[in-house]
Amino acid sequence: MPEDIRPGEIAVALPDAFDAGVYFIGRIRTPWTRRDDCPKNARGSDASCTIELDPRYAAALDGVAGCTHLVVLYFMDQARRDLLVQAPRHGERRGTFALRSPVRPNPIAMSVVRLLHIDGTKLSVVGLDCLDGTPLIDIKPYFASVDSVPEAVVGWNAKEAP
Amino acid sequence: MPEDIRPGEIAVALPDAFDAGVYFIGRIRTPWTRRDDCPKNARGSDASCTIELDPRYAAALDGVAGCTHLVVLYFMDQARRDLLVQAPRHGERRGTFALRSPVRPNPIAMSVVRLLHIDGTKLSVVGLDCLDGTPLIDIKPYFASVDSVPEAVVGWNAKEAP
Repeated sequence: MPEDIRPGEIAVALPDAFDAGVYFIGRIRTPWTRRDDCPKNARGSDASCTIELDPRYAAALDGVAGCTHLVVLYFMDQARRDLLVQAPRHGERRGTFALRSPVRPNPIAMSVVRLLHIDGTKLSVVGLDCLDGTPLIDIKPYFASVDSVPEAVVGWNAKEAP
Repeated sequence: MPEDIRPGEIAVALPDAFDAGVYFIGRIRTPWTRRDDCPKNARGSDASCTIELDPRYAAALDGVAGCTHLVVLYFMDQARRDLLVQAPRHGERRGTFALRSPVRPNPIAMSVVRLLHIDGTKLSVVGLDCLDGTPLIDIKPYFASVDSVPEAVVGWNAKEAP
């Protein structure tokens, strides 16, 4: 995979084989068809998006309508997976695990979304920022008791050493 | 896979092939070696656990020490994947996507953890509830601005219809 790399970026030789497999269990419908059109992050747009669950899994939605918010996992299948340090066009050079970039060894994105309504196997939600057609991996209930940490800080200038 | 199923549970025939692959990028070390010993959820213990990242990916940790909290994705490789409706021993029958159970089509768990310190490729964290040796899939910075929703509600008794 001789792909472009920017100055300061570091790529790795990935393992020869995968360790496990995932099923695409649906598709995410968004207004964004080009990467440059996607909002910078999930709060960058209040657009309503649609999670289209494969009808095979319909029964698993039982109880989901009682959740105001959901955790959505999806697969950024357009992203390269070999960059360990990234130099975003606008932003500082940083390790992949300190970034929410789709570029990562396992390009699985996590977004917290607000559930608007459910119509059969279609969920209308607010809070996604991905390309139209992105494969869905999982839907989970969002529990404020374990998932909400208002005081969390990402201090880019903090000392790296513990 | 002729596995046991409880009354009220619904299983599905999973697709014949996976759609994408994941790499195990490390292992999670916890005090729990049997499923029955694991805390009920991630706030059920303040035990310090260790994320052992494969040294291959060490460079990707650059900047992570500046995060007070992280999103950790891991692969529940002991869990069956075919249940759409589950009847937990203690609890109501519910759809898989309304549960945080490891049993799901893609058994990828998400936990929000507090970062204590980093020593090389070992991260000491609080907030995990998984078995010792669980494969690591991803580490992300936790951004309160998009990931924290203190007012989120999971209302199991809410009407299912929107």
